[in-house]
Amino acid sequence: MALTSEQMEQAASFMMELLRELAWIGAEGAANVAAADPLGTTAQLSAAAVEAAGGAGSAQAPGQAASAAAGAAAGVPGAAEAGAGAVPPTASVPPTASGAASAVEASGTPHAPQGLIGPAGALGVTRLLYDDAWLQAQRLLERRLAAAGLEPRFDRAGSLFGRLPGTDGGSRVVLTGSHIDTVRRGGHYDGAYGVAAGIAALAALKRFCGPPRRTLEVVSLCEEEGSRFPLSYWGSGTMIGRYGLEGASFYHDPDGETLEQAMLAAGFGRPEQPHPRRDDLDAFVELHVEQGIVLERSGEPIGVVQAIVGQRRYTFTVAGEANHAGTTPMPLRRDALAGAAEMALAAERAAVRRGEPMVATVGRLEAEPGTPNVVPGRVRFTLDVRHDDVEALESFCRELLEELDGIAARRGLELQGELWMDAPPARMDAELADRLARAAGRRGLAVRRMASGAGHDAQLLSEICPAAMLFVPSRAGISHSPLEFTEEAQLAAGLAVLIDALYELAYEERVP
Amino acid sequence: MALTSEQMEQAASFMMELLRELAWIGAEGAANVAAADPLGTTAQLSAAAVEAAGGAGSAQAPGQAASAAAGAAAGVPGAAEAGAGAVPPTASVPPTASGAASAVEASGTPHAPQGLIGPAGALGVTRLLYDDAWLQAQRLLERRLAAAGLEPRFDRAGSLFGRLPGTDGGSRVVLTGSHIDTVRRGGHYDGAYGVAAGIAALAALKRFCGPPRRTLEVVSLCEEEGSRFPLSYWGSGTMIGRYGLEGASFYHDPDGETLEQAMLAAGFGRPEQPHPRRDDLDAFVELHVEQGIVLERSGEPIGVVQAIVGQRRYTFTVAGEANHAGTTPMPLRRDALAGAAEMALAAERAAVRRGEPMVATVGRLEAEPGTPNVVPGRVRFTLDVRHDDVEALESFCRELLEELDGIAARRGLELQGELWMDAPPARMDAELADRLARAAGRRGLAVRRMASGAGHDAQLLSEICPAAMLFVPSRAGISHSPLEFTEEAQLAAGLAVLIDALYELAYEERVP
Repeated sequence: MALTSEQMEQAASFMMELLRELAWIGAEGAANVAAADPLGTTAQLSAAAVEAAGGAGSAQAPGQAASAAAGAAAGVPGAAEAGAGAVPPTASVPPTASGAASAVEASGTPHAPQGLIGPAGALGVTRLLYDDAWLQAQRLLERRLAAAGLEPRFDRAGSLFGRLPGTDGGSRVVLTGSHIDTVRRGGHYDGAYGVAAGIAALAALKRFCGPPRRTLEVVSLCEEEGSRFPLSYWGSGTMIGRYGLEGASFYHDPDGETLEQAMLAAGFGRPEQPHPRRDDLDAFVELHVEQGIVLERSGEPIGVVQAIVGQRRYTFTVAGEANHAGTTPMPLRRDALAGAAEMALAAERAAVRRGEPMVATVGRLEAEPGTPNVVPGRVRFTLDVRHDDVEALESFCRELLEELDGIAARRGLELQGELWMDAPPARMDAELADRLARAAGRRGLAVRRMASGAGHDAQLLSEICPAAMLFVPSRAGISHSPLEFTEEAQLAAGLAVLIDALYELAYEERVP
Repeated sequence: MALTSEQMEQAASFMMELLRELAWIGAEGAANVAAADPLGTTAQLSAAAVEAAGGAGSAQAPGQAASAAAGAAAGVPGAAEAGAGAVPPTASVPPTASGAASAVEASGTPHAPQGLIGPAGALGVTRLLYDDAWLQAQRLLERRLAAAGLEPRFDRAGSLFGRLPGTDGGSRVVLTGSHIDTVRRGGHYDGAYGVAAGIAALAALKRFCGPPRRTLEVVSLCEEEGSRFPLSYWGSGTMIGRYGLEGASFYHDPDGETLEQAMLAAGFGRPEQPHPRRDDLDAFVELHVEQGIVLERSGEPIGVVQAIVGQRRYTFTVAGEANHAGTTPMPLRRDALAGAAEMALAAERAAVRRGEPMVATVGRLEAEPGTPNVVPGRVRFTLDVRHDDVEALESFCRELLEELDGIAARRGLELQGELWMDAPPARMDAELADRLARAAGRRGLAVRRMASGAGHDAQLLSEICPAAMLFVPSRAGISHSPLEFTEEAQLAAGLAVLIDALYELAYEERVP
């Protein structure tokens, strides 16, 4: 073990503090509730409230000023802070813990969501690449890194790095971290957990273990979610050279601003800033919430990712004949919706038959004309297929498409399919994954070897260095939602495994 | 036979002339095309053009002035007519026949729709209860009835009647006719055919056979489609007392105008006008296009309706769990869309198993959140079930709902169903139907006894007198569409059977 229990607790406290601070930056719809509710209770954040607010779809990002005001009203540190006042990593009491406890007590119901962080009643957090909340979050982390002596620097794309230089005199780096951006109205853990844990890990290692032999870095990647511009993985993609910065003028956000304009406006994209391309990485370890229900169901606290699934996404159009629902006998129909229904079930059945980790999802389905008394003449539906083995993905899709063609032919329907996403699976480094699993085992934590069904920065960075991922459970598998939640003890367990693994890699290993 | 072949031809010509005149009144999007195309070609009216225009959804009803202008530009009589100039019922050449022939020749393709009536390039006809086009159509028919000596009168609801008084001195009436209103962008035959044929029938009988023993009437019912106000069958419904005129203030159209306001503005609803309630009907015979594909497929030119189906319409809500499409293994899903797909197929399979005339249709289906990479958590879909036997309808729905409940339970989904329409079947009068079938047989026309899958005014009038219906084929079963079409010879065959049957009922029969 790299650290004592007490030292590990301090690291976990710092991590939680960073997560709580981030939870205020970009929080949506929170200002009113927080101002009216100085205790910072979380009882209002019910699923029903979230659904109602989401359905209305009218709330907008309150922006930096509103977030800061809300933070000030509720007395949470960091959000309203103007300068570079550092919170020491030894702070062991979460600043809002007493408030949260009072809130649970006051709400009087054991069914209210407990332990959620961030402003009361918030409808999720929105930090989109280069927007005000995003910039505020990166600047906050820059100050926290500086206060911890971790030499913060931004690259030209806006990814923030902290550095704990090695004593070996070499230039090779072991990197951890994740992304700081969110989906619209996302949760507080997706990405932010890996960033906060990485910073807390390096801060604790520096404080308690001194300088490592091999250089450690932590990254708060600028973009992963693809929520503002029509591209994803802008942070890790620029690091591995998949994206060149010169392409930034080709992408527009919904308001017509280009990626380049947004980047320059946020203060990035300047020649004097370090180019994001990296060729000095020895390893990348990403800690992330699972965003799925596997670990919760299995009861295992740690997942070690063996592969990130490949994805194929199709849109199918089924064309039949729109007819009067009363005057068209069943045998004379060419019902596009009945055909699409049979296809959706065929996809589901085929995925079940293949077994895990194969998944196939019809997520969107639209029938035309969409009138109760008209046989649908046309249906469009999407199909999302994922597997961690490229051969399995390929053969599954080939066979399923043949089956769908057969259904269409038998029903006299026309079927057209368009493949609009085809991302290959990414294998994680087996040795690095084994090391993570052993580290968890030494702490008595049960480990599940698993595929990641969601995409992650690790799949891009795996192209330039050994990469691996650690998962912790997500409550009810919920993600991309304000209800995203992982218990503090589970977050701390993931942090402990990360610290142990980084210690091994940077302090104990000889440089290769 | 009531009439000679030549007399029947003259009646058919008059009917076609009325249909062509009506086709200009309320025609949508026709002004530009007609003005640019003085030949009045129909080649532009392709399915693709209709779909493209419908998809854009921007065209509006041009109103009376635009229709009249278009009519004037293309030289079609009636539409631009200002006064009460009557066209004699002996006109035997359709006014646009030469233009249409040239158009087919010019277009050079045998696949262009041929024989369509109305302005070239029109996107359908829209005559909504009490609107300008509706009023223009009723006024036109009033003049045509007057010119033919058929004593036109409106009832208080706006239904227009023509009358050929009997010599028996009694007050009992044999009625024919149909409705003058249309769906939005509807076809030229739905309703209008039965009205035009009824007027032509009475005009021909009066001219060639003199006064009948029993009084004949023809009606152009004010409303059947339910396209403007949230009610249907306003014409026949007020005749049988299902609707009282005093309820007219409770219905609003989408612009907020009440049915009462619209009725008064059009000049109806006045105490001095005859109340629509009727208790003097001996029989009602409605001639209508099938709006289905049965007659076209069977090759039989005449359908005799035995019953009008009962209808039940449900909306079902399937609630599962929205989850990440990548991170949620198949066995852990509660996929509302997969469940709804299985339910839609169960409904289809059950209807096929029951056999004709059972039909079941899922016409609308909406999945939430409707994102390609999210397992749908909630689906709403409609189910429309029809059969002409109330017991069969009842047992089918009971058994199907049990099956749907079973599907939901097996998949861990919650299913809620709402029955929002429950219209019982209406049996047509067997003796009257037999009479219609015999009349067709005497003309060597093959007859199909059938159920009507669509609702008609005859089902309401069957509550106060013996009622029956005649169907003629609809090309490809298309209705409620600008592409609705029935060949002139088929329309004439239906008219001939109607005339023969009315002759029997009013000239040959003793008054009961």
